[in-house]
Amino acid sequence: MNDSQHSDCVIIGGVAAGPKCAATLARRRPGATITLFQKEELLSYGTCGLPFFASGDISSLEELLITSYGVARDADFFAKAKSFTAITAAEITTIDREKKTITGRMIHTGETFTHGYDKLVITTGANPTPPPFPVADCPNVRTFTRPADAAYFRRQAEQGKIGKAVVIGGGLIGCEVIQSCADLWGIETTLIEIKNHVLPYVLDDEMAEIVEREIIRHDVKLASGVGVEKIETDGDGNPVVYVTGREPISADYVFLCLGVRPNITLAQSCGLAIGQTGAIEVNEFMQTSDPDIYAGGDCIETVNQLTGRKMYIPMGSMANRHGRVIAEHIAGCARPFPGALGAFLVKVFDLHVGAVGLSEIVANQTGLKTRAAWGSFPDKPDYYPEYKTFSAKMVYDTADGQLLGLQAVGSGDICRRIDAFSTHLHFKSTVDQLLDFEHGYAPPFSEALDPLHHLAGIAKAQRAGFVFANIDHAVKQFGDAFWLDVRETDEVEGQPIPSVAGTDSINALNIPLKEIKDRVSQLDKTRKIVIICKRGVRSYQAAHILKNAGFTDVVIVGGGVQTMQ
Amino acid sequence: MNDSQHSDCVIIGGVAAGPKCAATLARRRPGATITLFQKEELLSYGTCGLPFFASGDISSLEELLITSYGVARDADFFAKAKSFTAITAAEITTIDREKKTITGRMIHTGETFTHGYDKLVITTGANPTPPPFPVADCPNVRTFTRPADAAYFRRQAEQGKIGKAVVIGGGLIGCEVIQSCADLWGIETTLIEIKNHVLPYVLDDEMAEIVEREIIRHDVKLASGVGVEKIETDGDGNPVVYVTGREPISADYVFLCLGVRPNITLAQSCGLAIGQTGAIEVNEFMQTSDPDIYAGGDCIETVNQLTGRKMYIPMGSMANRHGRVIAEHIAGCARPFPGALGAFLVKVFDLHVGAVGLSEIVANQTGLKTRAAWGSFPDKPDYYPEYKTFSAKMVYDTADGQLLGLQAVGSGDICRRIDAFSTHLHFKSTVDQLLDFEHGYAPPFSEALDPLHHLAGIAKAQRAGFVFANIDHAVKQFGDAFWLDVRETDEVEGQPIPSVAGTDSINALNIPLKEIKDRVSQLDKTRKIVIICKRGVRSYQAAHILKNAGFTDVVIVGGGVQTMQ
Repeated sequence: MNDSQHSDCVIIGGVAAGPKCAATLARRRPGATITLFQKEELLSYGTCGLPFFASGDISSLEELLITSYGVARDADFFAKAKSFTAITAAEITTIDREKKTITGRMIHTGETFTHGYDKLVITTGANPTPPPFPVADCPNVRTFTRPADAAYFRRQAEQGKIGKAVVIGGGLIGCEVIQSCADLWGIETTLIEIKNHVLPYVLDDEMAEIVEREIIRHDVKLASGVGVEKIETDGDGNPVVYVTGREPISADYVFLCLGVRPNITLAQSCGLAIGQTGAIEVNEFMQTSDPDIYAGGDCIETVNQLTGRKMYIPMGSMANRHGRVIAEHIAGCARPFPGALGAFLVKVFDLHVGAVGLSEIVANQTGLKTRAAWGSFPDKPDYYPEYKTFSAKMVYDTADGQLLGLQAVGSGDICRRIDAFSTHLHFKSTVDQLLDFEHGYAPPFSEALDPLHHLAGIAKAQRAGFVFANIDHAVKQFGDAFWLDVRETDEVEGQPIPSVAGTDSINALNIPLKEIKDRVSQLDKTRKIVIICKRGVRSYQAAHILKNAGFTDVVIVGGGVQTMQ
Repeated sequence: MNDSQHSDCVIIGGVAAGPKCAATLARRRPGATITLFQKEELLSYGTCGLPFFASGDISSLEELLITSYGVARDADFFAKAKSFTAITAAEITTIDREKKTITGRMIHTGETFTHGYDKLVITTGANPTPPPFPVADCPNVRTFTRPADAAYFRRQAEQGKIGKAVVIGGGLIGCEVIQSCADLWGIETTLIEIKNHVLPYVLDDEMAEIVEREIIRHDVKLASGVGVEKIETDGDGNPVVYVTGREPISADYVFLCLGVRPNITLAQSCGLAIGQTGAIEVNEFMQTSDPDIYAGGDCIETVNQLTGRKMYIPMGSMANRHGRVIAEHIAGCARPFPGALGAFLVKVFDLHVGAVGLSEIVANQTGLKTRAAWGSFPDKPDYYPEYKTFSAKMVYDTADGQLLGLQAVGSGDICRRIDAFSTHLHFKSTVDQLLDFEHGYAPPFSEALDPLHHLAGIAKAQRAGFVFANIDHAVKQFGDAFWLDVRETDEVEGQPIPSVAGTDSINALNIPLKEIKDRVSQLDKTRKIVIICKRGVRSYQAAHILKNAGFTDVVIVGGGVQTMQ
């Protein structure tokens, strides 16, 4: 490569946002010269698929590197099919904003080069967050972010070299990696999370607890609220994880899943503005503080559509959308990027877990005054043979009923609810407007009223003065109140009110809903009464009966005992 | 019952909207007297579940009559748990709007009664559309709308008495009933539809054809575009269906699935306004032309949110929402009903079929100028083992890009796309705004970009001048053009371009996408070129390459050959 190279658009980074931007720009501005530099050998690999390669669900790593029709997404492919130049194993070292050039170095040859640009796009992604504790040098203590990480683990697993694994960090990747270990390979796995619960911030505690029960059910040892002090190696060179206040944990493999942080080295070194989240600051057209330099993907921060605050949300789906906005702005036809709502999904063993918008804890940290509605649902009518269930929590603004967030966890179909709720959030919808949701209905797919309608109904009941609590909250806060179980007697026998960690088991009086009216005189109006059933529907009905009979201190357990299944 | 009875609210009809209204009103206005009259013995039965009882998916009819916790939804249940009075086997014969009374007759005793009301709610539902042809009296020629119909059929099927069945009418119920016949019971089944395609109006022809291929694949004989002349009986008393221009069809059982029409007899007889659709006219609070009389469910017409025109859309999900609006308006706390978008789902054998908004044919009939975008998609990444596929068609307004409708058909997850698109329609979203959709993403559930993003992208390409056609359209209209297949050669061998009924098979030149650039000189610029691939993505990319090479008459086959799988 000689010094005189110049492209209309130069892109640094070749995983998600970069190639998407390049391909889109090549279509919007045919004839434009577009050059993409990628530090690694591989381009456009399906990072998000790595846990499923590690787990064996995906048989070969190649599947993450090819198109759906089996063609490698390499430089040749991008040149011939997508009309842009991709140069791999090329590390960009400096950006000269005055001269509008970048300089770099070919990793294999050491050759250096300079390349001029009219528009520059930084999609340098993210790097694993370095551990805040000392880590001994050991090949089997690694992060899990690159194809090489997944390939290395899988090779070890296939050779039967991993009997015990420790996963440090219970975020999205950590929760996927424990399955990679435990499910196919039968590795004895421990998950360590420093916060009190897995998936912190994105799920509230009581929703995370549902996930944790699933993790434990699959024989993964869960150590939450536990800090790691250091990782050393034993005499055989195997890692030992030292945790606060517990015995050290010996393992054959340790995954460092401590999250990622934006790779801002280049941006910072050329003086681009870095935001308060530590990621590159961009405007709604993904322009950095230098209007000729764009940035997108996991290295930027974005506006939270609900709070207007900046947030860092590294997510492949976002990166692809950033790439398009950048290309279209360069081509002169962009609409602004709307910001993010924080939608995510993750499969944790047999559980589908998802959320969008703000969790209650995050909303409250933001200073919003919120209320939450809980519910448990079948995902289709109970009479339909293949129905599954899930529990959900909806967060909304107490003052005006604006919707703020939805969390959903269960074996049932949560995706459509997350997607529909996400759309409601985007359009600044309210509890009342959620009742206008017209969902697709047929018994093989859904009930006549959608769970979102029921959640809106619960929120309206709350605003009319009914008090709801999640089962965890109710047991912990009102364990000594008078409990009324309005399920049928055979249901109570089949599934007693589950005990919650650190509390006594609950003894509830069982009066099936149909009998409440006739037996209301048996109840004490002066005591707090906590009403529970399977999913919350009957408790709500019973609460009306008690209210009409003059009871004033009634709590409804939203979501009922199904939440604890 | 004596003459002096009076209720604050009287409800006529006890299936969906009626009980929902009664239960909601009892909660909103405790102490109000509410009496519901139901002509049949059964209350609140799951009508939509009947095909699944008929098919054997649901083992007993009772499951459609009980709550999820096993308690019968009978008058006793409603009185004790829901705080309203339900009276069954009570036929209401007249409404006296002056005196604000209804009169009726107890079906078993013949006793007549009068009941006064402050507010009256008409939820009289719908009746099967009577056949427009003569039908001989035969117990095995019946409609399929009541529990008795389903129970009768299933008894006959269980006893092995049905070897051959004819289903007349390829609407939603007809499409469910053919499965009830063919799937479990192995009955030789013929489906007759007078229109050219099944699911007319809700699906456009080329989308209906996908459903028809599935029907035929499951050995159901499909006779579409075929009128029934009469149904007679043979010497053994078995039905014979006479159809225009074909041999008569002998059968053991004939289902009349000709749709339903609103039951407006009572409303009409007391002079309430009937709308242009033939259903009861109501305002946005579900009030009829008499403000003290409400109506909801399958007997009313509703406003189409997209066209502002009145439509008749009998649907259990709507009925439930009507019931709530009526109750809340009576209680003084209602928001208006927003009208309908026409969302529906139906399972046709292994195919999931759904739509929301306007089909292209309906939109054009309404006078809208529309364009359609087609696509075929995996519902998760191709590398994820359990992915399934579907094809979709999006209709939007040519002038301003307003979204008008989505149709989706395939084995993959269409529900979440229908629900999200429905929400976009409700908020009057456009093609551009659809690109802002933030879907939940994780490989076990979805791709980084959602099919809705791709459809929006296709629509934007159309507006930029690219021409797309569905494969059926392309084969029929451009069969003699020059076809270019840009798939890999092994794909072409594995799945040649399917032939379309009534056309010659297509001979396309195969140049894989990656080779187009180098071989573009082999192509003739003066001819129309139709580009095809598996899902449309590569064709779109190839179209850009040709356009940049100066080709001006290029058609992209949207959705590719996957549409025909």
